[in-house]
Amino acid sequence: MRNGESGSRCLPASSTKPMRAQVEEYIVSLQDQIVSAFENLDPAAPTFKRDSWVRAQGGSGQSCIFACPGDATIEQQTVLEKAGVNISIVHGILPPAAIRQMRADHTSMPLPEDPDGLPFFAAGISLVVHPRNPNAPTVHANYRYFEITERVTGDDQEGATQPKLLAWWFGGGCDLTPSYLFEEDAIHFHSTIKQACDRHGPQLYPTFKKWCDEYFYIPHRNETRGVGGVFFDDLNEGPHARLSSPNSADAASRPTSPAEIFAFVQDLGNSFIPSYLPILTRRHPLPYTPHQRRWQLIRRGRYVEFNLVYDRGTKFGLMTPGARIESILMSLPETARWEYMSELGAEGTEEGKLVELPPLNEICMERCFVASP
Amino acid sequence: MRNGESGSRCLPASSTKPMRAQVEEYIVSLQDQIVSAFENLDPAAPTFKRDSWVRAQGGSGQSCIFACPGDATIEQQTVLEKAGVNISIVHGILPPAAIRQMRADHTSMPLPEDPDGLPFFAAGISLVVHPRNPNAPTVHANYRYFEITERVTGDDQEGATQPKLLAWWFGGGCDLTPSYLFEEDAIHFHSTIKQACDRHGPQLYPTFKKWCDEYFYIPHRNETRGVGGVFFDDLNEGPHARLSSPNSADAASRPTSPAEIFAFVQDLGNSFIPSYLPILTRRHPLPYTPHQRRWQLIRRGRYVEFNLVYDRGTKFGLMTPGARIESILMSLPETARWEYMSELGAEGTEEGKLVELPPLNEICMERCFVASP
Repeated sequence: MRNGESGSRCLPASSTKPMRAQVEEYIVSLQDQIVSAFENLDPAAPTFKRDSWVRAQGGSGQSCIFACPGDATIEQQTVLEKAGVNISIVHGILPPAAIRQMRADHTSMPLPEDPDGLPFFAAGISLVVHPRNPNAPTVHANYRYFEITERVTGDDQEGATQPKLLAWWFGGGCDLTPSYLFEEDAIHFHSTIKQACDRHGPQLYPTFKKWCDEYFYIPHRNETRGVGGVFFDDLNEGPHARLSSPNSADAASRPTSPAEIFAFVQDLGNSFIPSYLPILTRRHPLPYTPHQRRWQLIRRGRYVEFNLVYDRGTKFGLMTPGARIESILMSLPETARWEYMSELGAEGTEEGKLVELPPLNEICMERCFVASP
Repeated sequence: MRNGESGSRCLPASSTKPMRAQVEEYIVSLQDQIVSAFENLDPAAPTFKRDSWVRAQGGSGQSCIFACPGDATIEQQTVLEKAGVNISIVHGILPPAAIRQMRADHTSMPLPEDPDGLPFFAAGISLVVHPRNPNAPTVHANYRYFEITERVTGDDQEGATQPKLLAWWFGGGCDLTPSYLFEEDAIHFHSTIKQACDRHGPQLYPTFKKWCDEYFYIPHRNETRGVGGVFFDDLNEGPHARLSSPNSADAASRPTSPAEIFAFVQDLGNSFIPSYLPILTRRHPLPYTPHQRRWQLIRRGRYVEFNLVYDRGTKFGLMTPGARIESILMSLPETARWEYMSELGAEGTEEGKLVELPPLNEICMERCFVASP
């Protein structure tokens, strides 16, 4: 399956399949569509390497990775420098300590105490794309579904009946990290995801855009990571810390049922290709200088700093014994650079525009509101 | 002052100066000696950039940095690729939260409670050197002195009398991180620092070498950072979690008085140049291939992972509002590289020897014990 299916948007909301199965089916298909879209954009490049893996404690996944390290001839030509599009579908027992941590991170989730831990299920897709050309932005997206269930009795270990759900939620988002600022790229990216969000309620884009700006911020640099996007977590039928109550008058301004929330997540996931591919298509053929490449590598250093120091998913992965480290750290760029007191990024330069981003982020949002219906 | 003073080892143990002043004098002189040694090794290279800074909340420092980014002609020729030799002498009030954190990190230190915080003084030297040639190892060293004192009354704010010491300690160490393993280099490095340690008691080298191996370990990779060295903290006249009691029969096997401990720290600090310069001198002129350069950059990626995820000093710096981020992150290499499932480092290759280091670390120690008196 290599392309051609981007038209088929959502699974029917009336599906009788369990949500686990629906999510799994969706992320498998989305991974395939996204990898195919990149492969079709650059047919002369090596294909993505597809690595399937099995988790000893339960579950499996597939990492699809693009890289051509060490081959100088190819390096000059490929659109992408390094990219990973990973899915994982895992289950097991969440130990009490992990439940406590989860309770701290997800304060709106009523997670019960259990001295023996609780069964969990997690399915998600996560991608990071670092193009070679400094004019083409890095992009990141990730969508995940999480369940915590009651322990099943010994008679029903094989899962003949569905275990009782104690908690479930969706989380995810996508964001764009340019090295050079093209306002029209930021506007296209935001407009596309705003349109996807708006189909599911007017609260979503402004709330999740703000959350994204807060999350992808590097305190020790006092810099945003990029031009933002959307970020959300803990989305389910219950009250949400950042959204109006499901029982309030404007409940219609957000999805509340599992089917509605999943439809929103799919719409956003499906908007990835239209939000990013047009940008990559117009930027990858631009000429660039060694100076621009150097600045791109400095910005990739910032990306490394964010991911290793702050990113929740990366930190959780690094602390998880037995985690597949190569899949977790596939998000890191092929090359990154640190210069002491670099003169690049000074006020008034093309590079400096990027460092002064926070106000622009607001401008972007305002323009998106104007540009999209 | 550019060289020629490496013969003058310790300040007289009978100095009547306060320890703060002795430590400051020592690290200023050591910084100068070390920077001069590197500048003399490569007279054609640009000199280190000397940046003095003042901390608004109290104190000052000097960062001496070597770098020649963006100049391809120079890049081909310099022995060093990036290096920083920093000193800082700072003081102020440690807030209660910082004291609590410090109490957790330094369990053998009897730090008192104080709702208004307590005055502190910290003086230290910290250096990281990344040579250009993949055959030449990266080296790191840092030595620091810390005091916590009683609050002085309003009448004595100007420090006419010495405030009462509540706690003090020395910490530090040095370690070597090769990309390619030359056993004789590891042995020379360890032997030199072992000799410095042994002059101050036979317990120090084995205890601090083991501590170093534990500290410079990357759990998510199950790899050591390099071939080790020594690492210590909390060294003062009181009991120490890893050393014999100052009142025990073998107390002579470790320094206990402030003067003895400072003499040990100076001896170790002075051993930096003889431990490292001979290695750099013989490795920097070796020819190397693009393949070796690539492996070096992958190992530098590990260095970044360790520093951003685990290093106490870096983490503390990143979390400190108003910290001088360019000085903290000067330890990062100019360039680092991440490859998904890299084929480099496979068993049986020159690169693989390095990844299989933990047992070698033990071999090194055994050989050092044999090689040095």
